[in-house]
Amino acid sequence: MAWYQKTLTLQSRSRGCYLVTDEITRAISSSLKQYKVGIANIFRNSASLTLNENYDPDVRTDMEMMLNRLAPENAPYIHTMEGPDDMPGHVKSSLFGVSLNIPIKDGKLALGTWQGIWLCEHRDYPHSRNVVVTIQGEKK
Amino acid sequence: MAWYQKTLTLQSRSRGCYLVTDEITRAISSSLKQYKVGIANIFRNSASLTLNENYDPDVRTDMEMMLNRLAPENAPYIHTMEGPDDMPGHVKSSLFGVSLNIPIKDGKLALGTWQGIWLCEHRDYPHSRNVVVTIQGEKK
Amino acid sequence: MAWYQKTLTLQSRSRGCYLVTDEITRAISSSLKQYKVGIANIFRNSASLTLNENYDPDVRTDMEMMLNRLAPENAPYIHTMEGPDDMPGHVKSSLFGVSLNIPIKDGKLALGTWQGIWLCEHRDYPHSRNVVVTIQGEKK
Repeated sequence: MAWYQKTLTLQSRSRGCYLVTDEITRAISSSLKQYKVGIANIFRNSASLTLNENYDPDVRTDMEMMLNRLAPENAPYIHTMEGPDDMPGHVKSSLFGVSLNIPIKDGKLALGTWQGIWLCEHRDYPHSRNVVVTIQGEKK
Repeated sequence: MAWYQKTLTLQSRSRGCYLVTDEITRAISSSLKQYKVGIANIFRNSASLTLNENYDPDVRTDMEMMLNRLAPENAPYIHTMEGPDDMPGHVKSSLFGVSLNIPIKDGKLALGTWQGIWLCEHRDYPHSRNVVVTIQGEKK
Repeated sequence: MAWYQKTLTLQSRSRGCYLVTDEITRAISSSLKQYKVGIANIFRNSASLTLNENYDPDVRTDMEMMLNRLAPENAPYIHTMEGPDDMPGHVKSSLFGVSLNIPIKDGKLALGTWQGIWLCEHRDYPHSRNVVVTIQGEKK
Protein backbone atom coordinates (compact mmCIF):
# COMPACT_ATOMS: atom_id res chain seq x y z
CA MET A 1 0.00 0.00 0.00
CA ALA A 2 1.41 3.36 -0.97
CA TRP A 3 0.12 6.91 -0.80
CA TYR A 4 1.04 9.85 -3.00
CA GLN A 5 -0.27 13.41 -2.67
CA LYS A 6 0.56 16.44 -4.74
CA THR A 7 -0.93 19.91 -5.16
CA LEU A 8 -0.94 20.96 -8.81
CA THR A 9 -1.28 24.51 -10.03
CA LEU A 10 -3.18 24.38 -13.29
CA GLN A 11 -3.04 26.91 -16.09
CA SER A 12 -5.25 29.94 -15.38
CA ARG A 13 -8.59 29.92 -17.22
CA SER A 14 -11.63 32.18 -17.49
CA ARG A 15 -15.27 31.03 -17.49
CA GLY A 16 -15.99 27.90 -19.48
CA CYS A 17 -15.44 24.13 -19.57
CA TYR A 18 -11.98 22.78 -20.37
CA LEU A 19 -10.45 19.35 -20.98
CA VAL A 20 -7.55 18.93 -18.51
CA THR A 21 -6.83 15.19 -18.66
CA ASP A 22 -3.36 15.67 -20.19
CA GLU A 23 -2.39 18.56 -17.93
CA ILE A 24 -3.22 16.47 -14.84
CA THR A 25 -1.91 13.07 -15.96
CA ARG A 26 1.41 14.55 -17.19
CA ALA A 27 2.00 16.05 -13.73
CA ILE A 28 1.47 12.72 -11.93
CA SER A 29 2.53 10.15 -14.56
CA SER A 30 5.83 9.10 -12.96
CA SER A 31 3.94 8.11 -9.80
CA LEU A 32 0.76 6.86 -11.47
CA LYS A 33 2.56 4.28 -13.60
CA GLN A 34 3.91 2.55 -10.48
CA TYR A 35 0.43 1.51 -9.31
CA LYS A 36 -1.02 -1.84 -10.34
CA VAL A 37 -4.43 -1.01 -8.83
CA GLY A 38 -5.73 1.98 -6.89
CA ILE A 39 -7.88 5.09 -6.76
CA ALA A 40 -6.95 8.64 -7.73
CA ASN A 41 -8.83 11.42 -5.96
CA ILE A 42 -8.70 14.81 -7.69
CA PHE A 43 -9.98 17.64 -5.52
CA ARG A 44 -10.59 21.33 -6.09
CA ASN A 45 -11.58 24.00 -3.60
CA SER A 46 -13.88 25.93 -5.94
CA ALA A 47 -15.40 25.75 -9.45
CA SER A 48 -16.10 22.20 -10.72
CA LEU A 49 -14.42 19.01 -11.80
CA THR A 50 -16.42 16.54 -13.86
CA LEU A 51 -15.93 13.61 -16.22
CA ASN A 52 -17.36 13.85 -19.72
CA GLU A 53 -16.68 13.47 -23.46
CA ASN A 54 -13.08 14.15 -24.53
CA TYR A 55 -13.42 14.65 -28.26
CA ASP A 56 -15.67 17.34 -29.72
CA PRO A 57 -15.02 20.83 -28.21
CA ASP A 58 -18.64 21.76 -29.06
CA VAL A 59 -19.73 19.52 -26.16
CA ARG A 60 -17.85 21.84 -23.79
CA THR A 61 -19.44 24.92 -25.40
CA ASP A 62 -22.92 23.39 -25.09
CA MET A 63 -22.25 22.43 -21.48
CA GLU A 64 -21.36 26.03 -20.59
CA MET A 65 -24.61 27.15 -22.27
CA MET A 66 -26.60 24.60 -20.23
CA LEU A 67 -24.87 25.55 -16.95
CA ASN A 68 -26.04 29.12 -17.60
CA ARG A 69 -29.62 27.92 -18.17
CA LEU A 70 -29.59 25.81 -14.99
CA ALA A 71 -28.12 28.62 -12.85
CA PRO A 72 -28.86 31.88 -14.65
CA GLU A 73 -27.38 35.21 -13.55
CA ASN A 74 -30.81 36.85 -13.35
CA ALA A 75 -32.30 34.60 -10.65
CA PRO A 76 -33.44 36.46 -7.49
CA TYR A 77 -30.21 35.98 -5.49
CA ILE A 78 -29.54 37.75 -2.19
CA HIS A 79 -25.77 37.13 -2.30
CA THR A 80 -24.79 39.53 -5.12
CA MET A 81 -21.92 41.54 -3.63
CA GLU A 82 -19.24 39.54 -5.46
CA GLY A 83 -20.79 40.10 -8.88
CA PRO A 84 -23.53 38.50 -11.03
CA ASP A 85 -21.35 35.48 -11.88
CA ASP A 86 -20.67 34.55 -8.24
CA MET A 87 -23.88 32.98 -6.90
CA PRO A 88 -24.53 31.06 -10.17
CA GLY A 89 -20.98 29.74 -9.75
CA HIS A 90 -21.82 28.38 -6.29
CA VAL A 91 -24.87 26.58 -7.68
CA LYS A 92 -22.93 25.10 -10.63
CA SER A 93 -20.16 23.96 -8.28
CA SER A 94 -22.59 21.90 -6.16
CA LEU A 95 -24.37 20.53 -9.25
CA PHE A 96 -21.19 19.16 -10.85
CA GLY A 97 -19.06 18.70 -7.72
CA VAL A 98 -15.41 19.43 -6.93
CA SER A 99 -14.02 15.94 -6.39
CA LEU A 100 -13.37 12.99 -8.71
CA ASN A 101 -12.50 9.42 -7.76
CA ILE A 102 -11.07 7.50 -10.69
CA PRO A 103 -9.94 3.86 -10.55
CA ILE A 104 -6.32 3.08 -11.47
CA LYS A 105 -5.63 -0.04 -13.51
CA ASP A 106 -2.15 -1.13 -14.66
CA GLY A 107 -0.53 2.26 -14.07
CA LYS A 108 -3.23 4.33 -15.79
CA LEU A 109 -6.46 6.09 -14.95
CA ALA A 110 -9.21 3.67 -16.02
CA LEU A 111 -11.04 6.29 -18.10
CA GLY A 112 -13.17 5.26 -21.06
CA THR A 113 -11.85 5.84 -24.58
CA TRP A 114 -14.05 8.92 -25.02
CA GLN A 115 -13.90 10.07 -21.40
CA GLY A 116 -11.82 12.94 -20.06
CA ILE A 117 -11.37 15.14 -16.99
CA TRP A 118 -13.06 18.51 -17.30
CA LEU A 119 -12.43 21.63 -15.31
CA CYS A 120 -15.38 24.02 -15.43
CA GLU A 121 -14.60 27.58 -14.35
CA HIS A 122 -17.68 29.54 -13.30
CA ARG A 123 -16.21 33.01 -12.66
CA ASP A 124 -15.58 35.45 -15.51
CA TYR A 125 -12.08 36.15 -14.22
CA PRO A 126 -9.89 33.18 -13.19
CA HIS A 127 -9.64 32.46 -9.48
CA SER A 128 -8.04 29.56 -7.60
CA ARG A 129 -6.21 27.09 -9.85
CA ASN A 130 -5.01 24.47 -7.38
CA VAL A 131 -6.05 20.84 -7.40
CA VAL A 132 -4.96 18.26 -4.83
CA VAL A 133 -4.27 14.84 -6.32
CA THR A 134 -4.24 11.94 -3.82
CA ILE A 135 -3.32 8.49 -5.10
CA GLN A 136 -3.47 5.30 -3.10
CA GLY A 137 -3.05 1.74 -4.19
CA GLU A 138 -0.90 -1.30 -4.58
CA LYS A 139 2.34 -0.83 -6.44
CA LYS A 140 3.53 -3.24 -9.15
CA MET B 1 -4.99 -3.89 3.41
CA ALA B 2 -6.39 -5.59 0.35
CA TRP B 3 -7.44 -4.41 -3.08
CA TYR B 4 -9.96 -5.95 -5.44
CA GLN B 5 -10.88 -4.71 -8.91
CA LYS B 6 -13.34 -6.15 -11.38
CA THR B 7 -14.97 -4.92 -14.58
CA LEU B 8 -18.63 -5.93 -14.70
CA THR B 9 -20.75 -6.05 -17.83
CA LEU B 10 -24.26 -5.08 -16.83
CA GLN B 11 -27.45 -6.02 -18.60
CA SER B 12 -28.11 -3.78 -21.62
CA ARG B 13 -30.75 -1.09 -21.01
CA SER B 14 -32.38 1.71 -23.00
CA ARG B 15 -33.07 5.25 -21.73
CA GLY B 16 -34.34 5.50 -18.17
CA CYS B 17 -33.35 5.01 -14.53
CA TYR B 18 -32.81 1.50 -13.18
CA LEU B 19 -32.13 -0.05 -9.80
CA VAL B 20 -28.95 -2.16 -10.11
CA THR B 21 -27.99 -2.80 -6.47
CA ASP B 22 -28.60 -6.56 -6.70
CA GLU B 23 -26.95 -6.94 -10.10
CA ILE B 24 -23.78 -5.27 -8.79
CA THR B 25 -23.62 -6.74 -5.28
CA ARG B 26 -24.23 -10.29 -6.56
CA ALA B 27 -21.23 -9.97 -8.87
CA ILE B 28 -18.88 -8.89 -6.07
CA SER B 29 -20.41 -10.55 -2.99
CA SER B 30 -17.77 -13.26 -2.48
CA SER B 31 -15.08 -10.57 -2.20
CA LEU B 32 -17.18 -7.93 -0.46
CA LYS B 33 -18.06 -10.17 2.48
CA GLN B 34 -14.37 -10.58 3.35
CA TYR B 35 -13.97 -6.88 4.21
CA LYS B 36 -14.49 -5.66 7.76
CA VAL B 37 -14.19 -2.00 6.75
CA GLY B 38 -13.48 -0.31 3.43
CA ILE B 39 -14.69 1.70 0.47
CA ALA B 40 -16.23 0.46 -2.78
CA ASN B 41 -15.76 2.68 -5.81
CA ILE B 42 -18.18 2.00 -8.68
CA PHE B 43 -17.20 3.75 -11.90
CA ARG B 44 -18.79 4.09 -15.32
CA ASN B 45 -17.39 5.63 -18.46
CA SER B 46 -20.66 7.16 -19.66
CA ALA B 47 -24.31 7.69 -18.57
CA SER B 48 -24.81 8.11 -14.79
CA LEU B 49 -24.58 6.29 -11.51
CA THR B 50 -26.43 7.72 -8.53
CA LEU B 51 -27.77 6.68 -5.13
CA ASN B 52 -31.47 7.09 -4.46
CA GLU B 53 -34.67 5.44 -3.22
CA ASN B 54 -34.87 1.68 -3.77
CA TYR B 55 -38.57 0.98 -3.32
CA ASP B 56 -41.21 2.67 -5.47
CA PRO B 57 -40.47 2.37 -9.25
CA ASP B 58 -42.47 5.59 -9.78
CA VAL B 59 -39.52 7.48 -8.28
CA ARG B 60 -37.37 6.26 -11.19
CA THR B 61 -40.06 7.28 -13.71
CA ASP B 62 -40.33 10.74 -12.16
CA MET B 63 -36.54 11.09 -12.13
CA GLU B 64 -36.36 10.39 -15.88
CA MET B 65 -39.08 13.03 -16.40
CA MET B 66 -37.10 15.56 -14.36
CA LEU B 67 -33.81 14.77 -16.14
CA ASN B 68 -35.60 15.61 -19.40
CA ARG B 69 -36.80 18.94 -17.95
CA LEU B 70 -33.32 19.83 -16.68
CA ALA B 71 -31.61 18.92 -19.97
CA PRO B 72 -34.30 19.06 -22.67
CA GLU B 73 -33.69 17.85 -26.23
CA ASN B 74 -34.82 21.17 -27.72
CA ALA B 75 -32.14 23.38 -26.13
CA PRO B 76 -29.98 25.28 -28.66
CA TYR B 77 -27.14 22.75 -28.81
CA ILE B 78 -24.30 22.95 -31.35
CA HIS B 79 -23.25 19.31 -30.90
CA THR B 80 -26.18 17.54 -32.56
CA MET B 81 -24.52 15.13 -35.00
CA GLU B 82 -25.01 12.10 -32.72
CA GLY B 83 -28.75 12.65 -32.37
CA PRO B 84 -31.10 14.73 -30.20
CA ASP B 85 -30.56 12.50 -27.15
CA ASP B 86 -26.75 12.85 -27.15
CA MET B 87 -25.99 16.35 -25.82
CA PRO B 88 -28.74 16.14 -23.15
CA GLY B 89 -27.07 12.87 -22.12
CA HIS B 90 -23.74 14.64 -21.61
CA VAL B 91 -25.42 17.25 -19.40
CA LYS B 92 -27.27 14.62 -17.34
CA SER B 93 -24.06 12.62 -16.91
CA SER B 94 -22.25 15.59 -15.33
CA LEU B 95 -25.26 16.50 -13.18
CA PHE B 96 -25.56 13.03 -11.61
CA GLY B 97 -21.95 11.86 -12.00
CA VAL B 98 -20.41 8.55 -13.05
CA SER B 99 -18.67 7.44 -9.87
CA LEU B 100 -19.94 6.25 -6.47
CA ASN B 101 -17.94 5.77 -3.28
CA ILE B 102 -19.80 3.65 -0.77
CA PRO B 103 -18.48 2.70 2.66
CA ILE B 104 -18.18 -1.00 3.50
CA LYS B 105 -19.11 -2.14 6.99
CA ASP B 106 -18.98 -5.77 8.17
CA GLY B 107 -18.83 -7.26 4.68
CA LYS B 108 -21.68 -5.19 3.23
CA LEU B 109 -22.19 -1.90 1.44
CA ALA B 110 -23.35 0.52 4.16
CA LEU B 111 -26.41 1.65 2.20
CA GLY B 112 -29.48 2.92 4.02
CA THR B 113 -32.56 0.69 4.24
CA TRP B 114 -34.32 2.59 1.46
CA GLN B 115 -31.20 3.40 -0.53
CA GLY B 116 -30.08 1.69 -3.75
CA ILE B 117 -27.64 2.04 -6.63
CA TRP B 118 -29.21 3.49 -9.74
CA LEU B 119 -27.95 3.34 -13.28
CA CYS B 120 -29.46 6.09 -15.44
CA GLU B 121 -29.10 5.54 -19.17
CA HIS B 122 -29.47 8.73 -21.19
CA ARG B 123 -29.30 7.41 -24.78
CA ASP B 124 -32.39 5.97 -26.48
CA TYR B 125 -30.42 2.94 -27.62
CA PRO B 126 -28.17 1.17 -25.09
CA HIS B 127 -24.44 1.96 -25.28
CA SER B 128 -21.56 0.95 -23.02
CA ARG B 129 -22.54 -1.33 -20.16
CA ASN B 130 -19.28 -1.75 -18.29
CA VAL B 131 -18.67 -0.63 -14.72
CA VAL B 132 -15.36 -0.92 -12.88
CA VAL B 133 -15.72 -1.89 -9.22
CA THR B 134 -12.68 -1.18 -7.04
CA ILE B 135 -12.76 -2.32 -3.42
CA GLN B 136 -10.15 -1.54 -0.82
CA GLY B 137 -10.18 -2.14 2.90
CA GLU B 138 -9.22 -4.24 5.82
CA LYS B 139 -10.19 -7.88 5.70
CA LYS B 140 -11.81 -9.69 8.62
CA MET C 1 -2.28 1.97 6.60
CA ALA C 2 -5.07 2.48 9.04
CA TRP C 3 -8.83 2.53 8.76
CA TYR C 4 -11.32 4.38 10.94
CA GLN C 5 -15.11 4.27 10.62
CA LYS C 6 -17.71 5.99 12.72
CA THR C 7 -21.43 6.68 12.38
CA LEU C 8 -22.29 10.20 13.55
CA THR C 9 -25.73 11.39 14.51
CA LEU C 10 -25.99 15.02 13.48
CA GLN C 11 -28.27 17.62 14.98
CA SER C 12 -31.81 17.40 13.56
CA ARG C 13 -32.61 20.02 10.91
CA SER C 14 -35.60 20.95 8.75
CA ARG C 15 -35.47 21.87 5.05
CA GLY C 16 -32.56 24.06 3.99
CA CYS C 17 -28.80 24.12 3.53
CA TYR C 18 -26.52 24.06 6.59
CA LEU C 19 -22.79 24.36 7.22
CA VAL C 20 -21.71 21.29 9.21
CA THR C 21 -17.90 21.35 8.90
CA ASP C 22 -17.36 21.96 12.63
CA GLU C 23 -19.98 19.46 13.76
CA ILE C 24 -18.33 16.73 11.67
CA THR C 25 -14.66 17.57 12.24
CA ARG C 26 -15.14 17.91 16.01
CA ALA C 27 -16.57 14.38 16.14
CA ILE C 28 -13.60 12.85 14.31
CA SER C 29 -10.73 15.19 15.24
CA SER C 30 -8.86 12.88 17.63
CA SER C 31 -8.56 10.30 14.84
CA LEU C 32 -8.14 12.71 11.95
CA LYS C 33 -5.10 14.41 13.45
CA GLN C 34 -3.19 11.10 13.48
CA TYR C 35 -3.19 10.86 9.68
CA LYS C 36 -0.32 12.32 7.64
CA VAL C 37 -2.08 11.66 4.32
CA GLY C 38 -5.40 10.02 3.46
CA ILE C 39 -8.97 10.32 2.27
CA ALA C 40 -12.10 10.95 4.35
CA ASN C 41 -15.36 9.61 2.92
CA ILE C 42 -18.52 11.17 4.37
CA PHE C 43 -21.67 9.31 3.42
CA ARG C 44 -25.36 9.90 3.99
CA ASN C 45 -28.31 7.66 3.18
CA SER C 46 -30.69 10.45 2.16
CA ALA C 47 -30.78 14.24 1.54
CA SER C 48 -27.50 15.75 0.23
CA LEU C 49 -23.93 16.46 1.20
CA THR C 50 -22.00 19.02 -0.84
CA LEU C 51 -18.93 21.26 -0.61
CA ASN C 52 -19.41 24.99 -1.01
CA GLU C 53 -18.70 28.46 0.41
CA ASN C 54 -18.33 28.59 4.20
CA TYR C 55 -18.75 32.27 4.92
CA ASP C 56 -21.89 34.19 3.91
CA PRO C 57 -25.13 32.47 5.09
CA ASP C 58 -26.96 34.16 2.19
CA VAL C 59 -25.23 31.70 -0.14
CA ARG C 60 -27.05 28.88 1.67
CA THR C 61 -30.38 30.75 1.41
CA ASP C 62 -29.88 31.34 -2.31
CA MET C 63 -28.91 27.69 -2.81
CA GLU C 64 -32.18 26.52 -1.22
CA MET C 65 -34.05 28.92 -3.54
CA MET C 66 -32.23 27.50 -6.57
CA LEU C 67 -32.81 23.88 -5.51
CA ASN C 68 -36.53 24.69 -5.46
CA ARG C 69 -36.32 26.14 -8.98
CA LEU C 70 -34.42 23.12 -10.29
CA ALA C 71 -36.80 20.60 -8.69
CA PRO C 72 -40.08 22.45 -8.05
CA GLU C 73 -42.92 20.93 -6.05
CA ASN C 74 -45.43 21.53 -8.84
CA ALA C 75 -43.77 19.34 -11.49
CA PRO C 76 -46.02 16.51 -12.81
CA TYR C 77 -44.77 13.81 -10.43
CA ILE C 78 -46.43 10.38 -10.13
CA HIS C 79 -44.81 9.58 -6.76
CA THR C 80 -46.71 12.00 -4.51
CA MET C 81 -47.94 9.81 -1.66
CA GLU C 82 -45.21 10.97 0.76
CA GLY C 83 -46.04 14.66 0.28
CA PRO C 84 -45.16 17.45 -2.16
CA ASP C 85 -41.63 17.81 -0.77
CA ASP C 86 -40.69 14.15 -1.27
CA MET C 87 -40.11 13.67 -5.01
CA PRO C 88 -38.31 17.04 -5.35
CA GLY C 89 -36.09 15.80 -2.50
CA HIS C 90 -35.16 12.70 -4.49
CA VAL C 91 -34.19 14.84 -7.48
CA LYS C 92 -32.12 17.24 -5.36
CA SER C 93 -30.37 14.33 -3.68
CA SER C 94 -29.13 12.93 -7.01
CA LEU C 95 -28.17 16.40 -8.28
CA PHE C 96 -25.93 17.20 -5.29
CA GLY C 97 -25.03 13.65 -4.21
CA VAL C 98 -24.79 11.96 -0.81
CA SER C 99 -21.08 11.20 -0.59
CA LEU C 100 -17.97 13.37 -0.20
CA ASN C 101 -14.34 12.32 -0.60
CA ILE C 102 -11.99 14.84 0.92
CA PRO C 103 -8.19 14.54 0.94
CA ILE C 104 -6.43 14.57 4.33
CA LYS C 105 -3.14 16.46 4.60
CA ASP C 106 -1.11 16.75 7.83
CA GLY C 107 -3.97 15.68 10.12
CA LYS C 108 -6.60 17.97 8.60
CA LEU C 109 -9.22 17.88 5.85
CA ALA C 110 -7.58 19.68 2.91
CA LEU C 111 -10.51 22.06 2.42
CA GLY C 112 -9.95 25.48 0.88
CA THR C 113 -10.01 28.56 3.11
CA TRP C 114 -13.56 29.44 2.01
CA GLN C 115 -14.77 25.87 1.59
CA GLY C 116 -17.03 23.99 3.97
CA ILE C 117 -19.15 20.84 4.25
CA TRP C 118 -22.84 21.48 3.65
CA LEU C 119 -25.75 19.32 4.62
CA CYS C 120 -28.85 20.09 2.55
CA GLU C 121 -32.10 18.75 3.96
CA HIS C 122 -34.87 18.45 1.38
CA ARG C 123 -37.84 17.37 3.54
CA ASP C 124 -39.90 19.92 5.48
CA TYR C 125 -39.66 17.79 8.62
CA PRO C 126 -36.27 16.37 9.62
CA HIS C 127 -35.65 12.70 8.74
CA SER C 128 -32.50 10.56 8.99
CA ARG C 129 -29.56 12.35 10.56
CA ASN C 130 -26.83 9.73 10.38
CA VAL C 131 -23.61 10.09 8.42
CA VAL C 132 -20.94 7.40 8.11
CA VAL C 133 -17.40 8.77 8.17
CA THR C 134 -14.71 6.41 6.81
CA ILE C 135 -11.10 7.50 7.05
CA GLN C 136 -8.14 5.69 5.55
CA GLY C 137 -4.56 6.75 5.22
CA GLU C 138 -1.05 6.68 6.51
CA LYS C 139 -0.54 7.67 10.11
CA LYS C 140 2.21 10.07 11.20
